Amino acid sequence: MNSLFLRVGARVQDWAPVLKVLSVLWLVLALFMVLPWAVLVIEGEPDAMAFGLSIAIVLAAVALTWLATMNVSVALKPWQMFVLTTLSWVTISGFASLPLVLAASRLSVTNAVFESVSAITTTGSTILVGIEFLSDGLKLWRGIMQWLGGIGIIVMGIAILPFLKVGGMRLFHTESSDWSDKVMPRTGGIAKATLGIYCGFTFTAMLAYWLGGMAPLDAVVHGMTSLATGGFANSDASFGAYADSPHLLWMGSLFMLAGALPFVLYIRFLRGSHLALWHDQQVQGLLLLLAVVILLLTGWRMWLGTPPFEALTHVAFNVISVVTTTGYASDDYSAWGALAFVAFFYLTFVGGCSGSTSGGMKIFRFQVAVILLRNQLRFLIHAHGIFASRYNNQPLTDDVTRGVVAFSFFFFLTIAGLALGLALMGLDFTTALSGAATAVANVGPGLGDIIGPAGNFASLPDAAKWLLCVGMLLGRLEILTVLVLLTPMFWRK
Amino acid sequence: MNSLFLRVGARVQDWAPVLKVLSVLWLVLALFMVLPWAVLVIEGEPDAMAFGLSIAIVLAAVALTWLATMNVSVALKPWQMFVLTTLSWVTISGFASLPLVLAASRLSVTNAVFESVSAITTTGSTILVGIEFLSDGLKLWRGIMQWLGGIGIIVMGIAILPFLKVGGMRLFHTESSDWSDKVMPRTGGIAKATLGIYCGFTFTAMLAYWLGGMAPLDAVVHGMTSLATGGFANSDASFGAYADSPHLLWMGSLFMLAGALPFVLYIRFLRGSHLALWHDQQVQGLLLLLAVVILLLTGWRMWLGTPPFEALTHVAFNVISVVTTTGYASDDYSAWGALAFVAFFYLTFVGGCSGSTSGGMKIFRFQVAVILLRNQLRFLIHAHGIFASRYNNQPLTDDVTRGVVAFSFFFFLTIAGLALGLALMGLDFTTALSGAATAVANVGPGLGDIIGPAGNFASLPDAAKWLLCVGMLLGRLEILTVLVLLTPMFWRK
Repeated sequence: MNSLFLRVGARVQDWAPVLKVLSVLWLVLALFMVLPWAVLVIEGEPDAMAFGLSIAIVLAAVALTWLATMNVSVALKPWQMFVLTTLSWVTISGFASLPLVLAASRLSVTNAVFESVSAITTTGSTILVGIEFLSDGLKLWRGIMQWLGGIGIIVMGIAILPFLKVGGMRLFHTESSDWSDKVMPRTGGIAKATLGIYCGFTFTAMLAYWLGGMAPLDAVVHGMTSLATGGFANSDASFGAYADSPHLLWMGSLFMLAGALPFVLYIRFLRGSHLALWHDQQVQGLLLLLAVVILLLTGWRMWLGTPPFEALTHVAFNVISVVTTTGYASDDYSAWGALAFVAFFYLTFVGGCSGSTSGGMKIFRFQVAVILLRNQLRFLIHAHGIFASRYNNQPLTDDVTRGVVAFSFFFFLTIAGLALGLALMGLDFTTALSGAATAVANVGPGLGDIIGPAGNFASLPDAAKWLLCVGMLLGRLEILTVLVLLTPMFWRK
Repeated sequence: MNSLFLRVGARVQDWAPVLKVLSVLWLVLALFMVLPWAVLVIEGEPDAMAFGLSIAIVLAAVALTWLATMNVSVALKPWQMFVLTTLSWVTISGFASLPLVLAASRLSVTNAVFESVSAITTTGSTILVGIEFLSDGLKLWRGIMQWLGGIGIIVMGIAILPFLKVGGMRLFHTESSDWSDKVMPRTGGIAKATLGIYCGFTFTAMLAYWLGGMAPLDAVVHGMTSLATGGFANSDASFGAYADSPHLLWMGSLFMLAGALPFVLYIRFLRGSHLALWHDQQVQGLLLLLAVVILLLTGWRMWLGTPPFEALTHVAFNVISVVTTTGYASDDYSAWGALAFVAFFYLTFVGGCSGSTSGGMKIFRFQVAVILLRNQLRFLIHAHGIFASRYNNQPLTDDVTRGVVAFSFFFFLTIAGLALGLALMGLDFTTALSGAATAVANVGPGLGDIIGPAGNFASLPDAAKWLLCVGMLLGRLEILTVLVLLTPMFWRK
């Protein structure tokens, strides 16, 4: 270990480009802090000071970094990309927590960091009680944090992870390189188009929510946290505050789903391939899964006595919320009986599509696993057959399948390890297991009385909250991005 | 589906060799029924009638089958091996349940089949309450069923599964073929040697238990169910009846462990390779895992106030019991705090070594997975490196790793599906999840108040018991052996 630290330390100059890029991201964060600050100043709220101070601290960090790295060029090597990716999420979460510590709510550092990590990773677990009574600026900031996290994860999924070959994401490498080569000369093109679509969807959602009856600030925040599949709401009851408005629930379902589809396909759609979405195997898989689960659980709810349309509306909303890893709840679905309880536990793992804002294992990994299992059964029957497999009209290389398998194992191992850690802190079986799963899959609510859809994370011990922060960041970074940093091999050479 | 049935039906003559082999196994079962029958006759117990009638029924089935298949030769094709393997466990469980239905305890068919499937698969879950008050013959029969299941699984693991290439078991193909080629000319040689060792260990265990203070019948039954890693005991308190005898607990730990090591290695040991056991990577892995877990949980128990030796004795016994998939309990370990609860849930999945009597995922699959994950991390760092992997001094072929991966996925899918089914029957989260895991891993007790080490399976609804029977059989047959039978492809051609 000693020599490892020496190696890390000996290359301080190699860290400069990483810092330089980070400081640009911090600047963007500071600029977005201006919005809630302005609202608070206009409203004459004392929390304005908290945001003013936070902006000053972040800008100071940016300025210092710029001074220190003025003459550094930012051509990043692969190892620097790994370091940058992890550090960007960690440092932005840290800076984003400043207003929460400094505001009138005076959160402890643990609570503030938990809330901001949960926001930036678009998880949506909260330690806040009485969200209704927060200042408008803080409500807005919670929405903005998730919205920024959402665009961050799309860009990371399209532009960074496929090149780092993490967890079989190479499957989407060709796809996006195709784009940059043929249709848009510069990778910046996709990023810009993605940002445009993300903003477009967000504004549409805000408008729809406002027209559907939400107060303006609620429409703005829910619009941001829907598209980010983040799930922060402006009330302790989450989306349950609108449980009586089927219109708003269906709008919510629609916009969460929009956030969980591959954004590259929206670009294709706009460029004329109007069927790109429907011909995509990942989208088909997600829609099929949702349809089957929603029908089954709606049947279950109806059998237990809920009227059909009410059952369908709430089942669809909460299933879509969990599968897209948004984490809104319109109802305490953990009280829907044993079958629903176990079903929602499984749904926590699934996740939406790759290249979207959602977390979890992602649909394509399940589809690749199904192909692997089918081939294995064939192999047992016809020992000498050769089974070439394709996914989304691309050959499924050993490279990709190995990546998918390794990711799946690491995903479960991370959740298992985290749950054991939470149990060590005294959390019961259900809370530890569902808490670990909801954190690593970036969903939001767990299951059971404590952290379930009707509860929140406030009462957990501090150590458990820090563990969950690690889990949320690991999940958001597709685990392997972080794990390679922990291998001595990474720092050698 | 219609044409599928036609295909199955059209080859009735192909089933004759399968039936012929099955009838030999049934005959063995009938012969073993003579033992409890003799005991009951000597004791003048009414249950003797139940065994007499059962023997008559089984012998009638054997006789009918022999008459029908008199001129059939028994050269089995691979597909017949698959069918035979599954049918042997199913039919033997069925016939073995006869005395339980007919005896004075008058179990329902559901309960009797659950108990015999649990016995033959060496799971050890029980629906009986008041085991102390059963007739000696029934107690003995429960032990014999597990003991027969134990030798069955060793033979299957050494002689059949590697040839069917199920779940990466081909890794042990070369090993056992090596044996048959070089050291023992006929495969029958290994089978005989294995049987000899199994009997030797069993008698040693019986003797040790008897000298340690158990009543003769208890020593006999526990001797059989220890080596079979089955876990049936002669008391509702399981091994807790001897909780005050560290001597018996440590003997129990030792014999459960003996049942969970690869029996092929014992043969090598006896033929002069005295270090064969210690040089085996699977044995090393199992011992290392046990040592780490036992030390950690002993520390945890001591921290909660248990005296060191008592903590060590009970932790070692129960950890070894669950990891070897025996399922004895010397104490209600689910009341040892949240950490122990979650830890025992994970331990349920592990299992002992391949080629032993234990179930679960098996140590070698975890070790292969670790190698895969290490290679994946290396691949992320050095994209163009080539990483040849070896396990137990054999190259780890793609064949084997694909088999291991597929098995792991199927294993978790089976448990997940089974748990969902149990939840549909109304079982709570903990009971459904731990019940599914303990059935498929052939461990025995689940977790929680109902089916935990202090409870039993009596109160579950009948449908849940049948589901668990399917789970136990699937687990014992390494899942894929059964799943291929369910693919239309298997029945084609």
